Amino acid sequence: MGSIRKWEEIVSEKRSLRDRSLKPYTVSNLDQRQPRVDNVQIRSRLDNPVAQNITDIDSIPILLEHLRTGKYTAEQVTHAYIQRSVVAHQLTNALTDTVFDEALSQARALDGHLQKTGELRGPLHGIPVSVKEQFNLKGVDTTLGYVGRAFAPATEDAAIVQILKELGAVVFVKTNLPQTLMWAETDNHLWGRTVNPRNPNLIAGGSSGGEGALLALHGSILGLGTDIGGSIRIPGSMNGLYAFKPTSSRYPATGVPGPTEGQEHVHFSSGPLTRDMKSLCYVSRLVADSEPWELDPKCAPLRWNEAAFQEMQARPLAIGLILDDGVVKVHPPIERAIRELASKLQDQGHEVTIWDTCDHHDCVKLMDQFYIADGFEDVQRDIDASGEPMIPHVQGLADRAKGKALSLYQYWQMNKRKVALRQKFLSRWNATRTSSGKPVDVLLGPTMAHTAVRHGKLRWVGYTKVWNLLDYPAVTFPVDTVKKEIDVQPNGYQPRNDLDAWNWGLYDPNTMHGHPINLQVIGKTLQDEKVLGAATVIEKISRGEK
Amino acid sequence: MGSIRKWEEIVSEKRSLRDRSLKPYTVSNLDQRQPRVDNVQIRSRLDNPVAQNITDIDSIPILLEHLRTGKYTAEQVTHAYIQRSVVAHQLTNALTDTVFDEALSQARALDGHLQKTGELRGPLHGIPVSVKEQFNLKGVDTTLGYVGRAFAPATEDAAIVQILKELGAVVFVKTNLPQTLMWAETDNHLWGRTVNPRNPNLIAGGSSGGEGALLALHGSILGLGTDIGGSIRIPGSMNGLYAFKPTSSRYPATGVPGPTEGQEHVHFSSGPLTRDMKSLCYVSRLVADSEPWELDPKCAPLRWNEAAFQEMQARPLAIGLILDDGVVKVHPPIERAIRELASKLQDQGHEVTIWDTCDHHDCVKLMDQFYIADGFEDVQRDIDASGEPMIPHVQGLADRAKGKALSLYQYWQMNKRKVALRQKFLSRWNATRTSSGKPVDVLLGPTMAHTAVRHGKLRWVGYTKVWNLLDYPAVTFPVDTVKKEIDVQPNGYQPRNDLDAWNWGLYDPNTMHGHPINLQVIGKTLQDEKVLGAATVIEKISRGEK
Repeated sequence: MGSIRKWEEIVSEKRSLRDRSLKPYTVSNLDQRQPRVDNVQIRSRLDNPVAQNITDIDSIPILLEHLRTGKYTAEQVTHAYIQRSVVAHQLTNALTDTVFDEALSQARALDGHLQKTGELRGPLHGIPVSVKEQFNLKGVDTTLGYVGRAFAPATEDAAIVQILKELGAVVFVKTNLPQTLMWAETDNHLWGRTVNPRNPNLIAGGSSGGEGALLALHGSILGLGTDIGGSIRIPGSMNGLYAFKPTSSRYPATGVPGPTEGQEHVHFSSGPLTRDMKSLCYVSRLVADSEPWELDPKCAPLRWNEAAFQEMQARPLAIGLILDDGVVKVHPPIERAIRELASKLQDQGHEVTIWDTCDHHDCVKLMDQFYIADGFEDVQRDIDASGEPMIPHVQGLADRAKGKALSLYQYWQMNKRKVALRQKFLSRWNATRTSSGKPVDVLLGPTMAHTAVRHGKLRWVGYTKVWNLLDYPAVTFPVDTVKKEIDVQPNGYQPRNDLDAWNWGLYDPNTMHGHPINLQVIGKTLQDEKVLGAATVIEKISRGEK
Repeated sequence: MGSIRKWEEIVSEKRSLRDRSLKPYTVSNLDQRQPRVDNVQIRSRLDNPVAQNITDIDSIPILLEHLRTGKYTAEQVTHAYIQRSVVAHQLTNALTDTVFDEALSQARALDGHLQKTGELRGPLHGIPVSVKEQFNLKGVDTTLGYVGRAFAPATEDAAIVQILKELGAVVFVKTNLPQTLMWAETDNHLWGRTVNPRNPNLIAGGSSGGEGALLALHGSILGLGTDIGGSIRIPGSMNGLYAFKPTSSRYPATGVPGPTEGQEHVHFSSGPLTRDMKSLCYVSRLVADSEPWELDPKCAPLRWNEAAFQEMQARPLAIGLILDDGVVKVHPPIERAIRELASKLQDQGHEVTIWDTCDHHDCVKLMDQFYIADGFEDVQRDIDASGEPMIPHVQGLADRAKGKALSLYQYWQMNKRKVALRQKFLSRWNATRTSSGKPVDVLLGPTMAHTAVRHGKLRWVGYTKVWNLLDYPAVTFPVDTVKKEIDVQPNGYQPRNDLDAWNWGLYDPNTMHGHPINLQVIGKTLQDEKVLGAATVIEKISRGEK
């Protein structure tokens, strides 16, 4: 690793290698691509109309159809996405290592295959994919934002990358994440900070923040992220995307190294970020049916459950509504969006019942203890490998953790409390009935307590991470935007605690105006299809479709 | 708990309470029930011919049919099993706490239900069930063989007990296990030692040793055990029973406290012990279809996969044959049994290929490190609660563990090695092909390197515990008995190591003559139905059925 050289030299070399690979695709008219909240993807527009048209297609199945008919070649599609990803990067600093040449060469091979056989290589033929830096790509570094892990390329593709490639997808770039991954903003010393595509003063979310910024600017049509506390859903939410955190045993994790690797108290989930709901479902179905359990022994041998997916779309749903987790109240536009959507759902015959969040805070408090259970030894070792400093958030965790490593026995007691919380939550879910006596299918609630905030201001991810502790699948999707005219700060709210006060103080209708509001649909462990099926219905209704 | 009183007093009170409950059913002619190896259940014969006939039925579905037709009432069946279990106990010391009165009263309620409705209460209506002491029964102690846990009754039935009762089963007694459960013999200070039903000088196996002894003597028709290193399969094997260690996420674990609870590196499995193969499959199907995931959040939502179960019985199998794990060579009768069965399988058109056990020892060595990872703090606390001494095996572990608690970081590194081993094993399995090019369906091999041995002599459980590390389902069943005339000790074998020499030195054809030889069928994670389906075929062929 890089322990002999100064860490700043490693950074400089990595960045210059990246920038060299981006160079052929950069634009010089950044001054004509000013921040905006509506149709943000206009900022990354391309001059070439074909490339522009290609990258304006949000839906993977639709793009695939154009590849099938020959309207676009895989090479054209890959090239277009490389171009637009680089512009997106110039605006947000979203990209890390690139594999543009390999991607183009793979795309040409796909075109050859189609030409020769008349058939697509697979159900993701020619679909460009960006992956969070954490996913191994053969021959490319996996640093997790640690300078000390640079220049140690992976020897194999991650299992999920193998699967997607086997289905015809073209992986073309890696994207930014925070040092340690244990933060919901995206910043590290190796690659710097990724900013919000709508406003560079605001966060892109994290830890899969590079994916969030990139997809919002149409620099990718399918992103892979990971989520152990909200890291797929938070950038999804800050950027108005469709983003799914599966149950941890659905998407394979092999070849996706993580921080605090070896801990088994909370497993991270790999999952997709897309630009529409259909694409999320399409990809998740393909992954399940690719038998990922033959590549990753932690995966459950569950094929896609089409019956469960369809059932949610064929009958009135019973929905538990989360309005407030009892710790940090959501900002006014988010509460408005939830209430409006609940009302639309009821108009369409679905049943909505308020969900009791009494045990959410216990789950979150336990999660917080886990993060620093090893006294931060794992992180400290990675930091020490290069001598780089910690970013402020990580330093804060380190200060809290110092000298407080748990004994193994204490750690096991904490795991017992986790099991008890999971047990309690499940029992309560199963005991809950709607007013008409139905069991609850899914929960619907906030993804975050706020829309995108200023850098360094994010503090509460309780609405996402409770589902990691429980290992419940959860999908986030945009339902509305902040409207400063109606989303005024109500007077007289008395915050319940410091965090609540902090969050309440962050609300700023003027800055937040126009930013997307994402909600979240959640289901029980391994009911991923049920969650996606219900979210499909709910999202349609949010758009006024029936 | 019992910390104020002397531990010997607690023992004395617990035993006297138990003995009082057994008293009405004890027999006085133990001198006429001498050790024997053939038809060992003759030792526990009953005077009452109806009770004798009832308890001679090995098959749960057949007993159920007699209950359905009214040939026997549930009360008769329960009473018969109580009687015979007590005789079995007098011969082996298998029982701990009893719930005879509750069981008889539940049985009468079932009879009332049948009389009133003409229908069985469920598919286990009136089937008596014994459970390892580890399973919570409301109002009864769960001690794990620790004196310090006595007189602290459980407040709820374990989830699996709830399920079985809901299906109509009648839980009537708890059975013995070793102090800490971390041993494959059955001894503790609270209840004493359980001995082999065929020969009191030999072990019953463990840790579910009470179940093993009880079922062999027809003192139960369905036993519940737990297995984290072989604890269902070893007593199954020592006693010639049918015993199944499911994948850990199939049978629910809620309400089954364990030693080192909170550790998540290797999950224990709950599972059944029975007296025929069909009963194992019958019960496992019912448990899967009872949706145990609604009671235990760790359970995978997998209903019984009948297609996989049937497929294994409908086509030639591809079987990987384990002859030797490369560490401890099996005794001559076991190798003979495997080779003979392999030959019969080939005669019936199944394909057999030798399985490479190159990584078994690595798995076992890693498991051994996990047992003492906390420096034995968990066990020491339970021992200290009463001041009882450790049994010799546990003391040995304690001496090895003392002062060697791992840091959390070291522990996570060990978990990483475990994940890597699971990954490697899976990849190798998937890359293996038989000579005709087929992938391997299941593995077939020894359960143990020996049949029942003298007390205190067991040292190697590598043939069972490798499947716990991998979380592979495994079923054991009898295929033959030791035959001193042909199973002579071959001359000239040079043991490879101390353990191998130890085991080789244990072979004693005269003492072992007539004792059952159990083999094991193993499948990949969550392929439980495949394992049971293949074992159904293989066991039939071992009996000469086609």
